[in-house]
Amino acid sequence: MGAAIAVTVWGENWHDRHNEAARRVYPEGMHTAIARGLAGSADLKVRAVTLDQPDQGLPDSVLGATDVLTWWGHVKHADVDDALVDRVQKRVLEGMGLIVLHSGHFSKIFRRLLGTNCSLKWREADEKERLWNLDPGHPVAEGIGEYIELPCEEMYGERFDIPTPDALVFVSWFQGGEVFRSGCCWERGHGRIFYFRPGHETYPTYYNKDIIRVIANACRWARPRVMIADKCPKTEALEPLPPRQPRP
Amino acid sequence: MGAAIAVTVWGENWHDRHNEAARRVYPEGMHTAIARGLAGSADLKVRAVTLDQPDQGLPDSVLGATDVLTWWGHVKHADVDDALVDRVQKRVLEGMGLIVLHSGHFSKIFRRLLGTNCSLKWREADEKERLWNLDPGHPVAEGIGEYIELPCEEMYGERFDIPTPDALVFVSWFQGGEVFRSGCCWERGHGRIFYFRPGHETYPTYYNKDIIRVIANACRWARPRVMIADKCPKTEALEPLPPRQPRP
Amino acid sequence: MGAAIAVTVWGENWHDRHNEAARRVYPEGMHTAIARGLAGSADLKVRAVTLDQPDQGLPDSVLGATDVLTWWGHVKHADVDDALVDRVQKRVLEGMGLIVLHSGHFSKIFRRLLGTNCSLKWREADEKERLWNLDPGHPVAEGIGEYIELPCEEMYGERFDIPTPDALVFVSWFQGGEVFRSGCCWERGHGRIFYFRPGHETYPTYYNKDIIRVIANACRWARPRVMIADKCPKTEALEPLPPRQPRP
Amino acid sequence: MGAAIAVTVWGENWHDRHNEAARRVYPEGMHTAIARGLAGSADLKVRAVTLDQPDQGLPDSVLGATDVLTWWGHVKHADVDDALVDRVQKRVLEGMGLIVLHSGHFSKIFRRLLGTNCSLKWREADEKERLWNLDPGHPVAEGIGEYIELPCEEMYGERFDIPTPDALVFVSWFQGGEVFRSGCCWERGHGRIFYFRPGHETYPTYYNKDIIRVIANACRWARPRVMIADKCPKTEALEPLPPRQPRP
Repeated sequence: MGAAIAVTVWGENWHDRHNEAARRVYPEGMHTAIARGLAGSADLKVRAVTLDQPDQGLPDSVLGATDVLTWWGHVKHADVDDALVDRVQKRVLEGMGLIVLHSGHFSKIFRRLLGTNCSLKWREADEKERLWNLDPGHPVAEGIGEYIELPCEEMYGERFDIPTPDALVFVSWFQGGEVFRSGCCWERGHGRIFYFRPGHETYPTYYNKDIIRVIANACRWARPRVMIADKCPKTEALEPLPPRQPRP
Repeated sequence: MGAAIAVTVWGENWHDRHNEAARRVYPEGMHTAIARGLAGSADLKVRAVTLDQPDQGLPDSVLGATDVLTWWGHVKHADVDDALVDRVQKRVLEGMGLIVLHSGHFSKIFRRLLGTNCSLKWREADEKERLWNLDPGHPVAEGIGEYIELPCEEMYGERFDIPTPDALVFVSWFQGGEVFRSGCCWERGHGRIFYFRPGHETYPTYYNKDIIRVIANACRWARPRVMIADKCPKTEALEPLPPRQPRP
Repeated sequence: MGAAIAVTVWGENWHDRHNEAARRVYPEGMHTAIARGLAGSADLKVRAVTLDQPDQGLPDSVLGATDVLTWWGHVKHADVDDALVDRVQKRVLEGMGLIVLHSGHFSKIFRRLLGTNCSLKWREADEKERLWNLDPGHPVAEGIGEYIELPCEEMYGERFDIPTPDALVFVSWFQGGEVFRSGCCWERGHGRIFYFRPGHETYPTYYNKDIIRVIANACRWARPRVMIADKCPKTEALEPLPPRQPRP
Repeated sequence: MGAAIAVTVWGENWHDRHNEAARRVYPEGMHTAIARGLAGSADLKVRAVTLDQPDQGLPDSVLGATDVLTWWGHVKHADVDDALVDRVQKRVLEGMGLIVLHSGHFSKIFRRLLGTNCSLKWREADEKERLWNLDPGHPVAEGIGEYIELPCEEMYGERFDIPTPDALVFVSWFQGGEVFRSGCCWERGHGRIFYFRPGHETYPTYYNKDIIRVIANACRWARPRVMIADKCPKTEALEPLPPRQPRP
């Protein structure tokens, strides 16, 4: 518990270079904003990487040193190498944490780990979102009050095509009339996964202190407790068995 | 509820042609034994298909007419086309049922839908298995007593690398000292998935009436309740929203 | 599946006699409105009973012949005999279904079976409720579209102090800004429990066809699959054990 | 995280005074053995109390200062005051942890919080138990290998009448042929509950280092994250609502 948690913030970094509205909000990139927010927590050791870097930002030297990976992507999901998805999936199943943000619901890695389409309803209309805290005792809700209110966000609405979460921490109310399971926890293999809905590229969501707090909390919750390589061993009996009969 | 449930029994059909011990037990193939067992239920309309057939046994004309698919494979998992796995996954998420049998735990389709390695401990030692019925009210346990005893089976032991099942119906005791979650239910998309452990190719497990009864029960439980194609729609607000502000 | 499901609709029957607004909406009582709505389903055999009747409406002759019990109460929860709560709990654990409606969240039987306070936020303001269907394949949502809209209802808001539901079928959006887990399934013992939020005494909610359809669906889903009396048996070993050593 | 966790070990303390075999194994009482075992962990501040003490060992001054309560009882369950059960339930729902040990499955507090009968099969035959670790990444399994083996224990067998656990950490194999869900986690209100099966009064189970380690781990996992008093507030709308219409 003493050692800092090595968090790697992965960003697609496309909108925040090529879309004017996003650039205005995140002039140094969304990944930088998220990483700076998390770096305010002394127990998190944060680095940010992007799709355009060598090995798409996650060479073994980085992935193998990552305790918790956060993932934001949107229009470049298809560009992520399947081999990288294999490597991230393998490491999550061994014990690494994964925090999937907003439009990352359609990332290859999220769909790979959950097995479903992860589709949803959506609308961009600058509307109000209120994330209700259903589980104030859950570690990812530590320090959060009854709700988080965001004045402007993209809407995501149910039905969200996901496996039933192991824990449902936040449910969003949207001004336009929809609801959404906005904070969802799963365990897969030895790793923990948290999906957190807010974070459209044209809103300053990742400067909101409560949003950053939830992501930091999630990094703590999802930090590895074990790292165990997959195996499927032939194993000897622990109790005496009768001798095998010759096949007739 | 009136219409018969269209069950397709998919078999790898390799051991039961090439392995002497398996051929002796299943001279007409394991898929034939399973299909005949299920065909004893008047509400199931059963067909059997195999890997060697055109389109690996599952052309659209068959898959599209299948309510519940049962899957037994072992040494030929890698031969199953990824495109077929895509099609089966799509249909399960739309609402089709899937019953995965024994060594099918390592099939591409099971791992695809669950997202984990699905690995386990194993041993072939002709030992006794006793499947304890933890949930007698669950539809897949209908008509089953406190346990099912199989005099000779392959052992599968924990830890079984699966997501926590939505329902855990059977847990196995093995003579050699292990336990195993043998009857597991999940929902993915609109489809239901049941994993049922017993059924090694050299034992007459698929002639056991209780084993067949569980598989038939599972076909009833997993029959489609809806068939809904995936979509991710942009949607209009249901409530009045304030006019969008021009971006500065 | 052939036999009709014996549904007993239990009503507190206080507001609908003593409160003018409720009497105007339900002149023959809420229990009568619910029972008539359900009686439109040929597979349900419905009777209505009330708190003021002998044995508070549920003598053994009635309870013992009930497959599914629906429960609406509000201001008279404390009047329900603990011995009746014991009997209902016992029968649910044996296999009977229980549908708890609206203010029944605070009934003795619901709290007894769930073990939590079942408290929530509330407000009476004639506001709009929209129940989103999160699980269209679930039997209690059969025939229901993307949502059910009620023009006027009491608001119930999170946090709802319940154990995590086994299945979450509906989540409500409220005009005033809250969300609520409105359709929740649990299994306790061999029985199934469904909580369904809408149904304040001064609104015509129980005349809404979709609301009645959900309750009828829930009766089908919760009908007994087994009826098993509780036992805690001393049992003989199924496998040979070494002789017990004399205590020193 | 810095402050020690205040653990109160509650013991019925009957067998270990009146039963010769139990006295021989636990001459200073089972509660003392458990408390000493836990006190080996520097982060746990442990006290032991018993049924015969004033307020049955749990006056407000003790209960109100307890972070995690462990509970072992067997033949004196009925002697525990209902008012004490009310107070413990209230504190668990507010956030206190509860660790229920072995025959505590039939305690009033466990049945109260779970809502089911909590019955099971049982046999005293000095047989071997092997607890398989299904979830090595779970905090209660920290430092535990693939299994814990106990040479002599009472047998508890399925069906264990409990709500489906939120997490299933251990499943036991018994020499006589049964299996059992031996390590089960639930959340109720803001509190966490762990049931741990082993610990019959005539076996030295509570001197086993792994058994104590699991209980100590469970105390850490179940320590309060929040303490929130129950409320059911009437609440004002967060969004503008249309004026209420006068009732006709």
